[in-house]
Amino acid sequence: MYRHETKIRVRYGETDQMGYLYYGNYALYYEVGRVELFRSLGLTYRELESQYGIMMPVKTLEQRFLRPAFYDDLLTVRTEIRDLPVRDITFHHRIFNEAGKLVNGGSVRLAFVDAGSRKSIPAPSFFVEKLKPWFE
Amino acid sequence: MYRHETKIRVRYGETDQMGYLYYGNYALYYEVGRVELFRSLGLTYRELESQYGIMMPVKTLEQRFLRPAFYDDLLTVRTEIRDLPVRDITFHHRIFNEAGKLVNGGSVRLAFVDAGSRKSIPAPSFFVEKLKPWFE
Amino acid sequence: MYRHETKIRVRYGETDQMGYLYYGNYALYYEVGRVELFRSLGLTYRELESQYGIMMPVKTLEQRFLRPAFYDDLLTVRTEIRDLPVRDITFHHRIFNEAGKLVNGGSVRLAFVDAGSRKSIPAPSFFVEKLKPWFE
Amino acid sequence: MYRHETKIRVRYGETDQMGYLYYGNYALYYEVGRVELFRSLGLTYRELESQYGIMMPVKTLEQRFLRPAFYDDLLTVRTEIRDLPVRDITFHHRIFNEAGKLVNGGSVRLAFVDAGSRKSIPAPSFFVEKLKPWFE
Repeated sequence: MYRHETKIRVRYGETDQMGYLYYGNYALYYEVGRVELFRSLGLTYRELESQYGIMMPVKTLEQRFLRPAFYDDLLTVRTEIRDLPVRDITFHHRIFNEAGKLVNGGSVRLAFVDAGSRKSIPAPSFFVEKLKPWFE
Repeated sequence: MYRHETKIRVRYGETDQMGYLYYGNYALYYEVGRVELFRSLGLTYRELESQYGIMMPVKTLEQRFLRPAFYDDLLTVRTEIRDLPVRDITFHHRIFNEAGKLVNGGSVRLAFVDAGSRKSIPAPSFFVEKLKPWFE
Repeated sequence: MYRHETKIRVRYGETDQMGYLYYGNYALYYEVGRVELFRSLGLTYRELESQYGIMMPVKTLEQRFLRPAFYDDLLTVRTEIRDLPVRDITFHHRIFNEAGKLVNGGSVRLAFVDAGSRKSIPAPSFFVEKLKPWFE
Repeated sequence: MYRHETKIRVRYGETDQMGYLYYGNYALYYEVGRVELFRSLGLTYRELESQYGIMMPVKTLEQRFLRPAFYDDLLTVRTEIRDLPVRDITFHHRIFNEAGKLVNGGSVRLAFVDAGSRKSIPAPSFFVEKLKPWFE
């Protein structure tokens, strides 16, 4: 398993009139979690697109909302890859508030797609190699 | 079962650099689907909050992304209530493009919460009554 | 002068914890105002990009916020072109609530840019021709 | 004058299909600039609302877009208060990319409002006192 944590502070514009982080904005936080996990491996999603011509569209998203998150909360996004990717890749996310309480948990499954043909491709080997040490 | 359809046009600011409707923005479209279903029943979610003091925070969200949606697409959001709500309520959503192809499908489960105490309450009877004719 | 009006309903996810339409979301409403003005002329911004290879990045934005807009308000976005475009184009926007009160006013200046070279170009003649009847 | 700098990384969901940070999202970055300037003074905007019952709605916004910002850019938001607030407060913002080039510049004027009455009030003295040392 590979795990990475990153911090995100809730913006005013991300709250709604209930005073909660709007439920649709958690997907953005999941994105940040994935991107920073990549960076922690010495990769960037930007390069994946611009240099390798690989895009990663989302196939499925599932989320449970346990507690509200509030404006200015400094949240911890914990992101895990639990299985070496073969075709798709699944990221598992848990978001904790400053008291360490679980706010939200869920997962996202993404495909690897050739940016030119927009066809599905297997997980690129340079990416799988980066992950392998954590799966032995 | 109660079903309602509404149309939403994809905004430029809702796309991402892949040229797709960003995956996090589907939650906003689901929200519009729910709200317009309410309106079609002669209720508004606004009144529910302001007059009845009832809030509806989201408990779970799950989505499958079948095809990309593109800028300026006029999408159809089909929203269904398949079971009379008791404590929570689940909305089932399907989003179709102009060619009638399924773009995205999923569901959202929401609680009924007293705005004062922020405690869970059962589905309000005036709301259940509105739905009953479609479940007989 | 050419004027067009379109309606936009405020989404829950577009409000903030003050209970107002978040100030950053007015830019999205201005975008819808521009795009629907185009459509009323028999053009679409989508075609401008995909068929003519012309992009319109924003150069300046200015806005005055007179009154708050609230969740579920059905706003009227009035968009005007007051001068035939030569190099840049300026859209003037006013947003009214259901009581007809002015909520927000402002303007956006955009350039015409060749999508290939990403260089500035003059206003395309087919677009200027569409507008001319309103400026005679 | 009081100046503060903070860093923000452009999220994928904040780009548009031009591949640029969407123009409407700069307002969110300005908000983060303001909020972090407050924090650098030992205040938080959260407390201002929750403890002092003061809200700060935006009155005017003006922005110039000089260069595009791109996905994953680590931008520097420089925020300045150039005049001690009396009734309203104006924040001046400049956003720089990693090459130190100016991407965007502008300003936001906000009012101080009593959360109960929703009436305008003068700049609170505890806030003005915090700023005074930089204006002598």
